[in-house]
Amino acid sequence: MSGFVSLVGAGPGDPDLLTCKAAERLRGADLILYDALVSPAVLALAPRVQRFCVGKRAGRHSIEQAAIHRLMIRAARRGRRIVRLKCGDPFVLGRGGEEAQALAAAGVAFEVVPGVTAAVAAPALSGIPVTHRGLAPGFVVLSGHAEDAYRAVLDSLAPNALTLVVLMGLRSRASLASLLLARGWRRSTPSAMLFAASTPRSAAWLGPLELLGAAPVPPEAAEAPVTIVVGDVVSLAEPARAGAGQPSTLAVGRSG
Amino acid sequence: MSGFVSLVGAGPGDPDLLTCKAAERLRGADLILYDALVSPAVLALAPRVQRFCVGKRAGRHSIEQAAIHRLMIRAARRGRRIVRLKCGDPFVLGRGGEEAQALAAAGVAFEVVPGVTAAVAAPALSGIPVTHRGLAPGFVVLSGHAEDAYRAVLDSLAPNALTLVVLMGLRSRASLASLLLARGWRRSTPSAMLFAASTPRSAAWLGPLELLGAAPVPPEAAEAPVTIVVGDVVSLAEPARAGAGQPSTLAVGRSG
Repeated sequence: MSGFVSLVGAGPGDPDLLTCKAAERLRGADLILYDALVSPAVLALAPRVQRFCVGKRAGRHSIEQAAIHRLMIRAARRGRRIVRLKCGDPFVLGRGGEEAQALAAAGVAFEVVPGVTAAVAAPALSGIPVTHRGLAPGFVVLSGHAEDAYRAVLDSLAPNALTLVVLMGLRSRASLASLLLARGWRRSTPSAMLFAASTPRSAAWLGPLELLGAAPVPPEAAEAPVTIVVGDVVSLAEPARAGAGQPSTLAVGRSG
Repeated sequence: MSGFVSLVGAGPGDPDLLTCKAAERLRGADLILYDALVSPAVLALAPRVQRFCVGKRAGRHSIEQAAIHRLMIRAARRGRRIVRLKCGDPFVLGRGGEEAQALAAAGVAFEVVPGVTAAVAAPALSGIPVTHRGLAPGFVVLSGHAEDAYRAVLDSLAPNALTLVVLMGLRSRASLASLLLARGWRRSTPSAMLFAASTPRSAAWLGPLELLGAAPVPPEAAEAPVTIVVGDVVSLAEPARAGAGQPSTLAVGRSG
């Protein structure tokens, strides 16, 4: 009997935003290897499955990428069904491509189960469409994790032409905001920080780009996934409308 | 009794890639208003629900946007539960933002149910991560529907800095490719056209950017959703690996 690895997107947090296939793979797994920011409500769908947190949380020591590869490969060779559960979509800024390459190189059978990325869902649940006629004809997604990488991306974009969505950007928000302003983005560009989107702990900060760098972080949100959105589409934000999962707290920054 | 509208993402095509919430909303609906390219397998989840195709298919006459708004609002005022079912994610290039605004202006209660966007899932299912260390630190999503809009986006990007994902770009692929080449993108940039991703009819074309404009379209794919990807990450494509939903046909263009 040979094992099998599913690289699964856990979506933004609400277990109802898992895909049907992801929910099925979780229930049928022998072992779940999950990222630190995967929501507990998602893991609760598979209460009896053995599971192991393999990182990664910004700024903390966590298991190395190569060790994750070894864990998956070893368990697959023992014939187990492994779910590698990653926040959002496994191939959006999550090193899922490297995991797929490692599995392929080891001859381990695997599949990719795409998920709902917070890059789109977090703004949507606050009433912000990442594209909108007359406001943004497209959007860019990047990571705020490594300055080398995000600086190169910001350098490649004309100011205020597209909606900018930054994942993992909480710690770098001041650096991101000052780079954007230095590159000519309008100081008044509507901006949002969306915490723990789609979960009961969701919260939002809205304000102009010039205040993003110093935007406050609610203490309970400091450990949550954060999505930063910069662009005119943020002016459409209408939190706390119908349905569940909209931000329950809203801070609004105003220029002085 | 007051009605309710759910703006629901149908995902890329495979009904197993619907979110659990989307599947639930479909089954509980009184009326489904769906886009022309929503996959029949998704609609088959709600066989007894009244449904109505409200467009839109490139280049064909279809119901106007304002008429879709009126239909939703009228049905909601009659107390019905309406699912407005849109390909992929409702807020990615799908005018979902305008529909949300119209509902809000009419005082109709509604929610947004994010979905898996083909912009990410179609490449993922062909082994292409939209971001990858050393190849692409981020990605851009735009529509190939209107030249004014995509020309402005392409003008705003430095060549070969990010992965480019184009939805609704089948008819404009020659124009898109020549604009990119004129802006300095490498002629050899790996490119893909992915048809009907995640469905049994899926197919793919892979080749350098300089051949994208003249890339052939399989006759059976002409009516399918198409995702175009341009960037070095396309070099990672490995179709027809484990699992279902990978492209069953693969054409590869080579420079002469």
